[in-house]
Amino acid sequence: MVCTIEIYEKPQLKDPILIEGLPGIGFVANIAARHLINELKAKRFAEIVSASFQDFAATTESGGFSSPVNELYYWKREDGGRDLIIWYGNSQALTTFGQYELCGKVLDIVLELGCRSMVSIGGFKKDEVQPIPFIYSAATDQESLQEALDLGTKIMVGHIFGIAGLLIGLGGLKGFRGFALLVETLGMYPDANATRHALATLGKYLNLTIDTSKLEAAADETKRTLESFGLIRNIVEEKKKEEEQMRWFI
Amino acid sequence: MVCTIEIYEKPQLKDPILIEGLPGIGFVANIAARHLINELKAKRFAEIVSASFQDFAATTESGGFSSPVNELYYWKREDGGRDLIIWYGNSQALTTFGQYELCGKVLDIVLELGCRSMVSIGGFKKDEVQPIPFIYSAATDQESLQEALDLGTKIMVGHIFGIAGLLIGLGGLKGFRGFALLVETLGMYPDANATRHALATLGKYLNLTIDTSKLEAAADETKRTLESFGLIRNIVEEKKKEEEQMRWFI
Amino acid sequence: MVCTIEIYEKPQLKDPILIEGLPGIGFVANIAARHLINELKAKRFAEIVSASFQDFAATTESGGFSSPVNELYYWKREDGGRDLIIWYGNSQALTTFGQYELCGKVLDIVLELGCRSMVSIGGFKKDEVQPIPFIYSAATDQESLQEALDLGTKIMVGHIFGIAGLLIGLGGLKGFRGFALLVETLGMYPDANATRHALATLGKYLNLTIDTSKLEAAADETKRTLESFGLIRNIVEEKKKEEEQMRWFI
Amino acid sequence: MVCTIEIYEKPQLKDPILIEGLPGIGFVANIAARHLINELKAKRFAEIVSASFQDFAATTESGGFSSPVNELYYWKREDGGRDLIIWYGNSQALTTFGQYELCGKVLDIVLELGCRSMVSIGGFKKDEVQPIPFIYSAATDQESLQEALDLGTKIMVGHIFGIAGLLIGLGGLKGFRGFALLVETLGMYPDANATRHALATLGKYLNLTIDTSKLEAAADETKRTLESFGLIRNIVEEKKKEEEQMRWFI
Repeated sequence: MVCTIEIYEKPQLKDPILIEGLPGIGFVANIAARHLINELKAKRFAEIVSASFQDFAATTESGGFSSPVNELYYWKREDGGRDLIIWYGNSQALTTFGQYELCGKVLDIVLELGCRSMVSIGGFKKDEVQPIPFIYSAATDQESLQEALDLGTKIMVGHIFGIAGLLIGLGGLKGFRGFALLVETLGMYPDANATRHALATLGKYLNLTIDTSKLEAAADETKRTLESFGLIRNIVEEKKKEEEQMRWFI
Repeated sequence: MVCTIEIYEKPQLKDPILIEGLPGIGFVANIAARHLINELKAKRFAEIVSASFQDFAATTESGGFSSPVNELYYWKREDGGRDLIIWYGNSQALTTFGQYELCGKVLDIVLELGCRSMVSIGGFKKDEVQPIPFIYSAATDQESLQEALDLGTKIMVGHIFGIAGLLIGLGGLKGFRGFALLVETLGMYPDANATRHALATLGKYLNLTIDTSKLEAAADETKRTLESFGLIRNIVEEKKKEEEQMRWFI
Repeated sequence: MVCTIEIYEKPQLKDPILIEGLPGIGFVANIAARHLINELKAKRFAEIVSASFQDFAATTESGGFSSPVNELYYWKREDGGRDLIIWYGNSQALTTFGQYELCGKVLDIVLELGCRSMVSIGGFKKDEVQPIPFIYSAATDQESLQEALDLGTKIMVGHIFGIAGLLIGLGGLKGFRGFALLVETLGMYPDANATRHALATLGKYLNLTIDTSKLEAAADETKRTLESFGLIRNIVEEKKKEEEQMRWFI
Repeated sequence: MVCTIEIYEKPQLKDPILIEGLPGIGFVANIAARHLINELKAKRFAEIVSASFQDFAATTESGGFSSPVNELYYWKREDGGRDLIIWYGNSQALTTFGQYELCGKVLDIVLELGCRSMVSIGGFKKDEVQPIPFIYSAATDQESLQEALDLGTKIMVGHIFGIAGLLIGLGGLKGFRGFALLVETLGMYPDANATRHALATLGKYLNLTIDTSKLEAAADETKRTLESFGLIRNIVEEKKKEEEQMRWFI
């Protein structure tokens, strides 16, 4: 199987932009994607289960359950702007191999919907964070980098691990153009403040006003989901390991 | 190869229910499935060998041998009730990746036979067990959960690892409906008593009287098979490791 | 790729028997296969390279090189007996998954040539060995077991790891019939004496007189090949690890 | 996906020779390939991303980024000699399995372009190196070995790990002919001097004058790329581990 994909609908989209929002440092991308889906009432059109996810299900007191899954949502914009595809999920793949497979599959799906642009959001772990956190960027090409810098970001120097890094590399190879927005965060907890600033920058790029008054709710929802998965603990441990290797995980 | 599948027969079945019975905590599912196959004289129609099983064969004093395999059995019910498919085996896959592959293959096979419902049975490891052990449930959807609660079960809260957890997640994605029955067990040995109560609850759901007078024989058979595989020792060790991680394995 | 297979010829064979001869405990199978190929002037018709082999090449003082490979040879018998297919190689796969893939591929190739029978040869590690070493057997079915017992073998009780164990399990599932001949060996070095007795028993079964006067040469050739691969050291280490686990590797 | 391949052009080539130049001991192959691409103005016609590469991107102060990738370049020779295909990259695969996949894919691509010959370049780690370093060779066959010896090389005795070793084994199986040129190096840093001698020998074979006045620039470029990837540190550690195992990595 490798990846089991259920596509519920093939939406007609206008030059759509892919927004990546899987769990990572500070859970910035994950909170941002959850909030965008909630605010924009984005519609789920695909579910993806990878054989490289963890093999378990988590149940809750209300009798609900969740198991590792990635989802794609679309939002049709009615003010003439470009449509959005939001890649949301409660898991990245467990292995490097699985990460490539997953990223490759998602890119193939959105390519078919005419998508050639992408933005990934992430946290950039710092030991100290500015009151208004800096936002760093990396891009597939100089033109995209300039677009990101024009939003007030700085050039990121270092390693981008995980899906956010893959998207730039693998996406670039498949003809996508775009950039990563990496916001400073202590990275130890779901960071709603960092997410607010990342969303403000994203909104500027999309020319879209994003109401963040309910952002704390999305952060809490994200926290609950990831806690039930044991992911918050895991990523903290992961980070420790990586610090020893002097790397940054996004 | 990934999975080598031999299908000996494609039975015509009436709205069949898949019963999962692979080895796990307390070996409850495995004993239950073995007993059902024995009692109902269910017929084997498929064998599955996964490249993610262990690469060995175990031989016995009578010259017989067994190697890691999963099997599918069917039972045609003659009293108007729904037919059964029983998923039996002496092994789960060694890797997360293999578990997904195996579960995906079995779901694909039974989907083709018109199966859309499933029940998985498992042990829920407790340090202390009631004389009449509690049975917990988790379900793919609220309606299925209600069916399980109506049988006298409680809502399960926690993690369901292995095939039982995957069945809910991956099965749900593929359109299956059903629930897991998780019976309290100390989990240190093949637990015939826990299995008896799980079978009673399953029988109530299926509206089927299951004679459990020969259940000890099925438990002994299961114990012998798994001992020759070294699995009983392994799962005990596995459990220890997992306790440290504060997880439950079913 | 998984496995890259080059088939140089599709021989017409008369009810052929597959003889497995990969490196294992005491290198019994490997020496036996090498010797049979030399003596019978068996003809190589296929080469298999698996992505689960080690990724290296070993060079020798004469400028030759060898890299991990498996080979299939055939021998057409002219006295009315059944033809042989000999599975020879300098490597088993590094992973369980690779072992299943490799074994599955070889069985598929020989199935196409009409092969339904197999004999695997192996060493059975003992701390003490009889002057005339005992030979143990395990079989895919009772009839094959009886054939092996009629050759003067004893029933093997325990675990058969690696390709020899897989052949019985996976081969049985694919409709093959046959047995494993497991000869006592200290297992610490290429054991020409154990191989001589294994070949005598195999010869009895095949009704074939095998001249073993040049067996030491085949043992030396095997030793040189495996030493240049570092395999002899590795298997000794492997064995130590397995002794701790109270298992036998063949 | 396993490997994502983008082929930008299918050049018509005259009996081309594949030159392998991935990072390894002393980075000799990598510097040599980079220099040849620069000097010959070779044209990139394919990019390959393997799911067995590391899942990250590295960004630089100028806002550029690089992620693990392999590339194929061609050079059409106008003096009547044979054309070249240069296999360049910033990564080998992380796993043995991935190395086989990658090597198999590249061989398949160049086979389609009519390529049947190959030369791999590598470092041969020594504790002491001659002022004019010795060059060792290993070959797919005796005729190719003689060609290499005629260039003034010595016979290599030992293990060739990684892509250079695979090329000989897997390439030989697929019908390629060629040899590896392994130049003495301390192997602790990108070794421009060793590379210069390797290129001189390669030039003699190709009957091609290679201007190496800008070789230091290629070495610096290689060093910067690999440092940004953390590869220089990694290979040094890798080497330590391998020394303990008494192996050579190329």
